Amino acid sequence: MSTRWKIIKGFPATSQDDYQLNLISFLKFAAKVYPEQEVVSRNLDGSLYRSNYAYTYRRVQQLANGLESIGVKAGDRVGVMEWNTHRFCELYFAVSGIGAVLLEVNPRISADERTYVLQHSEASFLAVSETMLPLLEPSLPSLSGIKAMIILRDDSSKPLPSLPVPTYDYESLLEKQLPVYEWPMVDERSAAVACYTSGTTGKPKGVYQSHRALYLHTWAIAHAMRLTHDDVVLQLVPMFHAQGWGVFFAAPMVGAKLVFPGRYAVDNMKPIVDLILQEKVSATCGAPAVFMPMLECIRAMDPKPDLAGLRMISGATEPPLAMMKGYWDLGKAQVIHAYGATETAPLVTINHLKPSLKFLDDDAKWELKKKQGLPVMGLDVDILGPDGNLLPHDGKSVGEIIIRGPWITGSYYNDPRSQDAFTEDGYWRSGDAGTIDEYGYLKITDRFKDLIKSGGEWISSVDLENAIMAHPAVLEATVIGIPHPKWEERPLALVILRKDYEGKVTKEDILDFIRPKFAKWQLPDEVLFVNEIPKTSVGKFAKRVARDLYKDFYTKESKA
Amino acid sequence: MSTRWKIIKGFPATSQDDYQLNLISFLKFAAKVYPEQEVVSRNLDGSLYRSNYAYTYRRVQQLANGLESIGVKAGDRVGVMEWNTHRFCELYFAVSGIGAVLLEVNPRISADERTYVLQHSEASFLAVSETMLPLLEPSLPSLSGIKAMIILRDDSSKPLPSLPVPTYDYESLLEKQLPVYEWPMVDERSAAVACYTSGTTGKPKGVYQSHRALYLHTWAIAHAMRLTHDDVVLQLVPMFHAQGWGVFFAAPMVGAKLVFPGRYAVDNMKPIVDLILQEKVSATCGAPAVFMPMLECIRAMDPKPDLAGLRMISGATEPPLAMMKGYWDLGKAQVIHAYGATETAPLVTINHLKPSLKFLDDDAKWELKKKQGLPVMGLDVDILGPDGNLLPHDGKSVGEIIIRGPWITGSYYNDPRSQDAFTEDGYWRSGDAGTIDEYGYLKITDRFKDLIKSGGEWISSVDLENAIMAHPAVLEATVIGIPHPKWEERPLALVILRKDYEGKVTKEDILDFIRPKFAKWQLPDEVLFVNEIPKTSVGKFAKRVARDLYKDFYTKESKA
Repeated sequence: MSTRWKIIKGFPATSQDDYQLNLISFLKFAAKVYPEQEVVSRNLDGSLYRSNYAYTYRRVQQLANGLESIGVKAGDRVGVMEWNTHRFCELYFAVSGIGAVLLEVNPRISADERTYVLQHSEASFLAVSETMLPLLEPSLPSLSGIKAMIILRDDSSKPLPSLPVPTYDYESLLEKQLPVYEWPMVDERSAAVACYTSGTTGKPKGVYQSHRALYLHTWAIAHAMRLTHDDVVLQLVPMFHAQGWGVFFAAPMVGAKLVFPGRYAVDNMKPIVDLILQEKVSATCGAPAVFMPMLECIRAMDPKPDLAGLRMISGATEPPLAMMKGYWDLGKAQVIHAYGATETAPLVTINHLKPSLKFLDDDAKWELKKKQGLPVMGLDVDILGPDGNLLPHDGKSVGEIIIRGPWITGSYYNDPRSQDAFTEDGYWRSGDAGTIDEYGYLKITDRFKDLIKSGGEWISSVDLENAIMAHPAVLEATVIGIPHPKWEERPLALVILRKDYEGKVTKEDILDFIRPKFAKWQLPDEVLFVNEIPKTSVGKFAKRVARDLYKDFYTKESKA
Repeated sequence: MSTRWKIIKGFPATSQDDYQLNLISFLKFAAKVYPEQEVVSRNLDGSLYRSNYAYTYRRVQQLANGLESIGVKAGDRVGVMEWNTHRFCELYFAVSGIGAVLLEVNPRISADERTYVLQHSEASFLAVSETMLPLLEPSLPSLSGIKAMIILRDDSSKPLPSLPVPTYDYESLLEKQLPVYEWPMVDERSAAVACYTSGTTGKPKGVYQSHRALYLHTWAIAHAMRLTHDDVVLQLVPMFHAQGWGVFFAAPMVGAKLVFPGRYAVDNMKPIVDLILQEKVSATCGAPAVFMPMLECIRAMDPKPDLAGLRMISGATEPPLAMMKGYWDLGKAQVIHAYGATETAPLVTINHLKPSLKFLDDDAKWELKKKQGLPVMGLDVDILGPDGNLLPHDGKSVGEIIIRGPWITGSYYNDPRSQDAFTEDGYWRSGDAGTIDEYGYLKITDRFKDLIKSGGEWISSVDLENAIMAHPAVLEATVIGIPHPKWEERPLALVILRKDYEGKVTKEDILDFIRPKFAKWQLPDEVLFVNEIPKTSVGKFAKRVARDLYKDFYTKESKA
């Protein structure tokens, strides 16, 4: 890794440069300076667990002793499969605090993929929600290296499931331990967490984030979210996905109240909306796949709740304008677009309005809010042209977004695919196509593989689907490029209508609505009204799956 | 240094942990993402120099080339003696950016001390304001290692002063250079700046801050000041004093507008108040020694200016309540107390009101604001008892404040006094006595050496002087402990009255005013009305000097 760039030495400093950046610092700080600040977690039965940072730290120290008591050692990989609860948070701090690695086990990927992740990482301990055990069971026979399992559940009184390795109840394990633990200082370049990429082609790839990387990332996310101790932070992004954007690290770092939603599902967001209102949540991260049904839920409420001051950082796909406006009009909540990936820890850009752009009129401001936003301090974010040169920041030159910096992965763990994923200068190649404008705003035009090649020209599937989603009748929409006998590829739109509009909207209605924004040849040849659009485990549209499902659509049609 | 604490290694990470934290990142970021954001600097004649981050970065690249052209190399110490200008800022970035060390040369210390600093650091280049040359001249004959000097001034057309080494005009040096520079990646443990402690007994001690230390400190100060790109930041603290609290690093880090006041003096704060109003300054750091005369200046204005939203971080001594209330009542400006030292880069604590204390009534909130505040995330801030154990955080147990962390100095450069300044665990011993309360707020009760030993009991000189300063007739006051034939030491108050009150207030008026707050034996034996109180170069009361001036006061008195 040290050959990526030359490092020169200057004059020696007298600073405590050997003081290591360790994640446990965040919680130690919160326990010392904000002991009374609340930590709230929603149990499986919907009731609330109420705690604070002093008590959380006490439990994390018990957990560290507990982990040691069952044989977990520095360097071990500890797989965790759990909802967004305080226990997951405690595991993050205790596992990394003793020098071990918390492996994020995604419950939404296939059993085969999960087996691969657990084998590839050589996980030797597992902490699993009792409710997720059925998902894990197909993998267990292939995992010879597991030494013990910890079962996560609200009710410790029930008998433990019968498993082929020593099994412990989480709460009982903690109960026996002293609430004092002498944390080692862990080399900051040691891995604190491991997350495997999801939703990509081929096997998942291992990203092993160091303490240093996540410590620095936490400053960046805290600043991007404008967090202070006056905030109430909701951990909405699944914590098995890029550490849930590190929100549960950032909250103790600034002394903010921290709320865990527990188990929730996008088809019933009412409990989450209630939680937001009851606990006075002021900041959260999520994705349109969650924010959209949440908005539908708020729309149905009477009277409309007051969400003033709520900042919702929206990752994954571009947030539809209708959704952003919906939150603003309904409850004065602000949706703020951000961009990142597992490989980037994840924060890369955040869309705040620059002071020099305050003069823009409202429409232009809304348009701007759809961009991915401004790079955060500390990263090199650039656009790589087809000739291998960096492209100008003119808002027009489209190239591959490449990123480098202290919290970007420099390789995939034990994976030959690392070779193609980085430039010679050490930039990670995102696979996203985009532009940076003269004000510094990044705009992802598409995934390279989601661009539609029609008759030698490119069509942005993202632009099309965002335009369609602005139609009041449309609940969700995606656009894919599928093989076409004449034009190589042509766009196909898949649309889910809102309940009230089903059967009342036609293909032509949709096309008429978006016609003013596109050239004729860019419009989808067909608009299919469907009940479901395939999604990835993190709520993005699974375009690869959709393309596969509909791959013969235009070729068959033409034959017919 | 590595023996202070044991560091254990975990599992290797895949993060780009060799990407070094370098200060130039802040400016590169600002130039790329906030090129249009303003940088304003007040010239010596009071006119304003207007620039932005794009142009500043251009000049810093020219400066880097210029420095190399005159022979500056990585590791060299470059002494700078300058007012708070954009040029000082440019030097900070360019000198550290090429791997050299910016040595802060204090124009307010004695010529002997300055000679010591320049010799001890083995500075080989000097960049000096033309107006400060007379201060430097006594040192020059003793400095054989100086290879070249750069003269800083607004008007480059005048002939250069005749000096014994090659001499360059700053602006002319820049003019000749290309505005593009390929920055090396500097090992983050290399020194970026060197600052020598002032106002202490004995020779100044060298603190050589690494890139890493200041990079991390900048996140902390940006968060403590709640800075965002919507702010306008004024660099009021002298930039030769603990890097001026790093405000000029934090502003580009967050994309805030940056304002330099140039040369100013506490006896004429009107130009600075005008600058604040005209440029719409929203955040600054300073000390009561500056904020007090500034308040007097605002008091004299009619109509009173609107300062709403202005945060003034106040370091050094405890800000008098009257001053904090004055700013609030006059212009809704907020004075926020902070604590730090050269050895701590400097931020250690900041006084924000915790959400859990919002219930306090106004009086209690004002009392709380006088404390030094909450430790910032990342540092270990503790109280060392006389027996060598850490004391509880109960708001009562008084001990020495000790501090450890990534931006705390671990030794003094080439100085045997390092041995006594640190604990075995690597904490720096601040020499300040204080408490931490159950909410985490630090309160400095006194410098250990400023505590008054009277008949075996301790009296806090700080408590006495703050009580006296609350009297409406008092402009400034300090209390010192001086030798007493019977009680070992007894307090003596030195008081400067406001102009209108001169001759109208007596010793008994002052003592009556503070009597309710103290035991009888704690009251000063004498109150002297004086025209001046000795101050250190950074505006703190120079109690050592005052003690020396009045050392015979009680002993003579008793003899008489």
